[in-house]
Amino acid sequence: MKALRSKGGVLTLENVARPERDNEALVRVLASGICNTDLEIVRGYAGFSGTIGHEFVGVVEKADYAPDIVGKRVVGEINAGCGQCELCRSGDPRHCPVRTVLGIVGRDGCHAEFLTLPTRNLIEVPPTIAEDEAVFAEPLAAAFGITEQVAINPDTRVAVIGDGKLGLLCAMVLAVKTSSICVVGRHRSKLAIAQDAGIEGVMADRAASLGRVFDVVVEASGSESGFASAVELVKPRGKIVLKSTFHGSPTWPASRIVVDEITIVGSRCGRFGPALELLAAKQIPVRRLISDEFSLTDGLAAMNRAGEKGVLKVLLRMT
Amino acid sequence: MKALRSKGGVLTLENVARPERDNEALVRVLASGICNTDLEIVRGYAGFSGTIGHEFVGVVEKADYAPDIVGKRVVGEINAGCGQCELCRSGDPRHCPVRTVLGIVGRDGCHAEFLTLPTRNLIEVPPTIAEDEAVFAEPLAAAFGITEQVAINPDTRVAVIGDGKLGLLCAMVLAVKTSSICVVGRHRSKLAIAQDAGIEGVMADRAASLGRVFDVVVEASGSESGFASAVELVKPRGKIVLKSTFHGSPTWPASRIVVDEITIVGSRCGRFGPALELLAAKQIPVRRLISDEFSLTDGLAAMNRAGEKGVLKVLLRMT
Repeated sequence: MKALRSKGGVLTLENVARPERDNEALVRVLASGICNTDLEIVRGYAGFSGTIGHEFVGVVEKADYAPDIVGKRVVGEINAGCGQCELCRSGDPRHCPVRTVLGIVGRDGCHAEFLTLPTRNLIEVPPTIAEDEAVFAEPLAAAFGITEQVAINPDTRVAVIGDGKLGLLCAMVLAVKTSSICVVGRHRSKLAIAQDAGIEGVMADRAASLGRVFDVVVEASGSESGFASAVELVKPRGKIVLKSTFHGSPTWPASRIVVDEITIVGSRCGRFGPALELLAAKQIPVRRLISDEFSLTDGLAAMNRAGEKGVLKVLLRMT
Repeated sequence: MKALRSKGGVLTLENVARPERDNEALVRVLASGICNTDLEIVRGYAGFSGTIGHEFVGVVEKADYAPDIVGKRVVGEINAGCGQCELCRSGDPRHCPVRTVLGIVGRDGCHAEFLTLPTRNLIEVPPTIAEDEAVFAEPLAAAFGITEQVAINPDTRVAVIGDGKLGLLCAMVLAVKTSSICVVGRHRSKLAIAQDAGIEGVMADRAASLGRVFDVVVEASGSESGFASAVELVKPRGKIVLKSTFHGSPTWPASRIVVDEITIVGSRCGRFGPALELLAAKQIPVRRLISDEFSLTDGLAAMNRAGEKGVLKVLLRMT
């Protein structure tokens, strides 16, 4: 089968054997989404070698221990825990210290014709959700995860720093919970997508004028300057949600965090159930975030496109 | 009156006029405690010029609008808000953007024969609390503040990084809430104080062997390496309480905070009521933290002593 693989900073489209893992389901991938993490992995993040990609929708081709799921259209939780450790037994395989993560840690990913995952990781997709919507289940779950860590009420003032696909998705999800929300970014075209969804867009050079008025600021730019903006915008005793991983060793105003008693909440993954509900209810205009689509055969071009300035989500179709 | 004053990196003992502020009480200081913040102010922290010191016990000498408090022995909340802004009106003058802070921001402090504070900042000290215990009300309130921000239950595993006076005080306060607590430090003599109070002491070079097992880690060393240790010791989804201010612009492993979904809680001040209750109940052996005492006349020597390696709390007596 064809697979988009990264090794030592080199990305290749290769013909490889279909994946096979004991006690796991084989999934035929229908479509996948390129995440910034994929681009970072090619640059060396996480030291991963193998098939990249972790956002997908597919059809279960084979599942020896769960025949009922064969033929079903599914999305998949990307963390696979050991099942034995304290965290796994407490129901949190996402933090299992020896977990594998689809296309990120020790497990081939979804920019390929087939993948495997434990059956318990797979969630059936309702028929009302189209392929190009279902691909957003993983990042949407990650965005929705914020609301499970930090209380967002109708009167909670929220700012999202970063108008990339993650920032826009976070803003769209949080806009379901509060009407007091804005996105701070550097691209008028991207802020326009937020504005079309009824969310205020603010150019980064104007952000300081908003003042220290936000109860919650979501940092989704992954840049040191983005975090600095978050600190400038959050109220004393407010919360900053760190949603993006950062390059290198950023500095931070630790004393300010102490003096203003700010809480910083690291936020990575979320549950797929609520994400599928949002997609089924058509509450999040995820298609507005799609910049382009490629066939897997043109995977290298797709990755180049995803790395261009101003581009949001790029999808891969496997067939 | 005599006052210990800092200006442009120079510390002097001066004779100055008694302080006077409209609508504030005049307090005759009995004793004060030297905090690391005092030492940092002399090095330039907060850009403060004036009388330093913010930990004290005193007797109210004059209070035009609250004659009942005259003659009472008091400690004092160090933040004085404007009383007008949204934060002050919601009962949180500690974060008022134009607040003054005793001996730190825009207000002469307590290493002097007299100070002034708004009457509402003063709290009467029960007679069972001695002078040299009452001086600990402010740092004890700050340590107790942790328990108001982060749930500490009898089975919560807690580590405190830093065996200075703040770290030891935090550990002693948290040991009231949980029996599963240790202090990580670099000084056997200081760790011995924790051990005498029934708290496990761990040398910093052995800390890594403890593993990532702590629900809550309190960073009280104010060093980048201390924060790095905190990240190594906290469980995934655990909490790091930032209790110390940091010098300069430290770096931090922001990606690790995201991937492990760690929460960082900035923590500065606390309420004095619970601190006085702890002191009255003799639950915290604060006297074990006193390294030395000086008269205010020897204030310069006292500050030098407080800055010596291995020294914990140094007290000043005004009479």
